[in-house]
Amino acid sequence: MQIKVMTNILDRNDQIAAEVHERLSAAGIFVVNLLGSPGCGKTSLLENTIAGLKGELSMAVIEGDLFTAKDAQRIEQYGVPVVQINTSGGCHLDANMVNSVLDHLNLETLDLIVVENVGNLVCPAEFNIGEDVKVTVLSITEGEDKPMKYPLIFKQASVVILNKIDLLPYTNFDMESATQDIKSINPNAVLIEASCRAETGLTEWYDWLKKQVKMKQSRSI
Amino acid sequence: MQIKVMTNILDRNDQIAAEVHERLSAAGIFVVNLLGSPGCGKTSLLENTIAGLKGELSMAVIEGDLFTAKDAQRIEQYGVPVVQINTSGGCHLDANMVNSVLDHLNLETLDLIVVENVGNLVCPAEFNIGEDVKVTVLSITEGEDKPMKYPLIFKQASVVILNKIDLLPYTNFDMESATQDIKSINPNAVLIEASCRAETGLTEWYDWLKKQVKMKQSRSI
Repeated sequence: MQIKVMTNILDRNDQIAAEVHERLSAAGIFVVNLLGSPGCGKTSLLENTIAGLKGELSMAVIEGDLFTAKDAQRIEQYGVPVVQINTSGGCHLDANMVNSVLDHLNLETLDLIVVENVGNLVCPAEFNIGEDVKVTVLSITEGEDKPMKYPLIFKQASVVILNKIDLLPYTNFDMESATQDIKSINPNAVLIEASCRAETGLTEWYDWLKKQVKMKQSRSI
Repeated sequence: MQIKVMTNILDRNDQIAAEVHERLSAAGIFVVNLLGSPGCGKTSLLENTIAGLKGELSMAVIEGDLFTAKDAQRIEQYGVPVVQINTSGGCHLDANMVNSVLDHLNLETLDLIVVENVGNLVCPAEFNIGEDVKVTVLSITEGEDKPMKYPLIFKQASVVILNKIDLLPYTNFDMESATQDIKSINPNAVLIEASCRAETGLTEWYDWLKKQVKMKQSRSI
């Protein structure tokens, strides 16, 4: 009984996700579903990305949180369109939540939407929201054992950003073990070592994003 | 419809949690449900706690993870009884999972069971597992905004351990803001600043645990 309900929910979610994806693809917009633990640096990555792509790509942000608009307020300061979704305690965004806020964005003017999901390394991986790609952020302070312990969210990611590498000298994090595990779970993932705080390693991420947007828009014409 | 199913699940879970709690209380065992994000330091706290309480309390550990027995293997080296629960992707432990492994422990010999829940700051807060108390670990590398963004898990905690304070000099973490927010959510929570890696601030935690076990056992007689 419970399993049946869950399957229905996931099927229905995938339907709405396909509609969201179709609508945004028709507008030539590339969509990133940004995933990771609480405090891994998703919002910091967004702040850097907005600054790093300024003048090159027209970007909007959808923020997902249980409560508060703290992240949306941080993003708003950078002068890009931002919409906050509060799940009221819910552990992930779903396609319907994203669908319901799209009318708040001026889609004709956008190249890129990044949806920052709820901070959670488990549940958000199970719900498509209409994205082109999932990107997973792992901060090195979380430990190198996380990919094998939470494999789904690493398996689904087109890019894995290993964040907070400025703290490497002060931790026991084993980068070789982490990258080997991620590659064994997902051989196609692009791995980027970065520090949002020290602003290192981010050019590779900006270049990857710009390339994806270009490819998407050439397909949409 | 979905809400009804969820309510039934929670009601049934609470029933089993009450049975687990009754059984373990009859054996004079104090039970901690240990919560926190992936990589906040729950297993490191356990490693320290086993060493710190050696010869004083008889302790067992129940490890909850989606996949792998990595944490149980770490704990096993310290010579305490440990049982691994794998949720196969599930985002939290429930009372039935804990109930189903109790026969693997020699309850007559134990004073304390610590159940390390799945690394997740959202879902585990909604499922009682028969514990006496919830304890939430927040690593300072996650940022001081987390209590207000994930209030339920801080509201329910008897103790909040602010871990990884050895990294304070290398982050922007605002300790005053974090502790004020936690106190506003949960005025009764005991706050402990600690570093499991540098082994600082842990005596207060050991003393708290020993006091709770003593109080529980004096009630059980």
